[in-house]
Amino acid sequence: MQTTRTTTDTDTPESAAYTPTDRTVPTRSRDRASYDRETVHAVLDEAYVCHLGFVRDGAPVVLPTLFARVGERLYVHGSTGSRPLRMAGDAQDGAADPGIQVCLTVTHVDGLVLARSAFHHSINYRSVVVHGTAHQVTDPEEKRAALDALVDHVVPGRAADSRPANAKELAATAVLRLDLNEVSAKARTGGPHDEPEDMGLPHWAGVLPLRRGYDAPLPSADLAQDIAAPDYLPGL
Amino acid sequence: MQTTRTTTDTDTPESAAYTPTDRTVPTRSRDRASYDRETVHAVLDEAYVCHLGFVRDGAPVVLPTLFARVGERLYVHGSTGSRPLRMAGDAQDGAADPGIQVCLTVTHVDGLVLARSAFHHSINYRSVVVHGTAHQVTDPEEKRAALDALVDHVVPGRAADSRPANAKELAATAVLRLDLNEVSAKARTGGPHDEPEDMGLPHWAGVLPLRRGYDAPLPSADLAQDIAAPDYLPGL
Repeated sequence: MQTTRTTTDTDTPESAAYTPTDRTVPTRSRDRASYDRETVHAVLDEAYVCHLGFVRDGAPVVLPTLFARVGERLYVHGSTGSRPLRMAGDAQDGAADPGIQVCLTVTHVDGLVLARSAFHHSINYRSVVVHGTAHQVTDPEEKRAALDALVDHVVPGRAADSRPANAKELAATAVLRLDLNEVSAKARTGGPHDEPEDMGLPHWAGVLPLRRGYDAPLPSADLAQDIAAPDYLPGL
Repeated sequence: MQTTRTTTDTDTPESAAYTPTDRTVPTRSRDRASYDRETVHAVLDEAYVCHLGFVRDGAPVVLPTLFARVGERLYVHGSTGSRPLRMAGDAQDGAADPGIQVCLTVTHVDGLVLARSAFHHSINYRSVVVHGTAHQVTDPEEKRAALDALVDHVVPGRAADSRPANAKELAATAVLRLDLNEVSAKARTGGPHDEPEDMGLPHWAGVLPLRRGYDAPLPSADLAQDIAAPDYLPGL
């Protein structure tokens, strides 16, 4: 199904789905995979952190990090001294930014699936895996917008209710951009799939649903007493 | 501080901490890093999934997967046809298992840290990063114990209350072992660290704590009505 739609940051008509590639078609459980943009966006937007993988000296490295989505672009940020950000910017002195090959993965655990048999125990989850080459953001306007998006990704509406980054802070922060091209979502839902011969066993079977909970906000000890927790905090 | 203690699966006296290496000493925020075994074990044991990174055709791949810890060993499992498990076992026909270089990472998001300035927004988290070479488990007893551990990792006590894997199921499942040697934990706790000149700004500052919540267990539609949800389910 190829319909056209417009993303928030470009005028390019795009299909409703990402094009599968060798890397995004799973070797098993293919029925759990999806390339639908809205599905992918929803899984990404609900996550506070991603796991960013890159290769260093031939070995894999996986680090948790904040990220944000703006249309079909993902942004991660870090100190200009951090390893992946340094690696992405290795070609200085006028050479083109070589970028860094990454795999960015996001996972939500939605439930524990208990089957009568040990073998059929499982997890209900939603995940997104993004493959691609991340590049340093050098355009000042894009960088500033990405940093706002990183704050708003954690608490929507917060960027406008905080002191914006100044020149020194902008200079100390590196931002990487990863375009959403080679992307897939995967999900498991529903109850256990026991073998017919196990149905009479005396073990409980079903799903224990998990959800994200928020406790009451904890104001900083040095916060003025007349500043109330803002309405836009989740869980309030 | 080098004290000795005994792990559950060996009689080798071990120090209370992992030895830092180039890969496990962070380039920044070194005060957030820890090599304490108990700290590392606690972070690992609380997580339902890890993010497993490996290199395929020179590019990083990061996949979410169940795992379990038994003493100083981690286990992940999957279909014998899955990519990382096939890659770990590529040397067949009597050659030694070459293993597969992996990075296994676990992260808990404990709170959203809101500062007066956009720049000082952060996340409270605990994470563990394990580097090493994973190997296929070929010993049948170790494999069976690892599969029990994988079930008990999700719901402690559940392995004994389910039908054990049969020969066919064992044959269909591959298990990888990763020893805990090159390991570090990292954590951020506490409130925001605003700049002195920002303290008078009118923005709320503090932490929004997150926690894992459980909803009521959902029995399978085909479950006999006289089988109650077991007491060992978390959240009950």
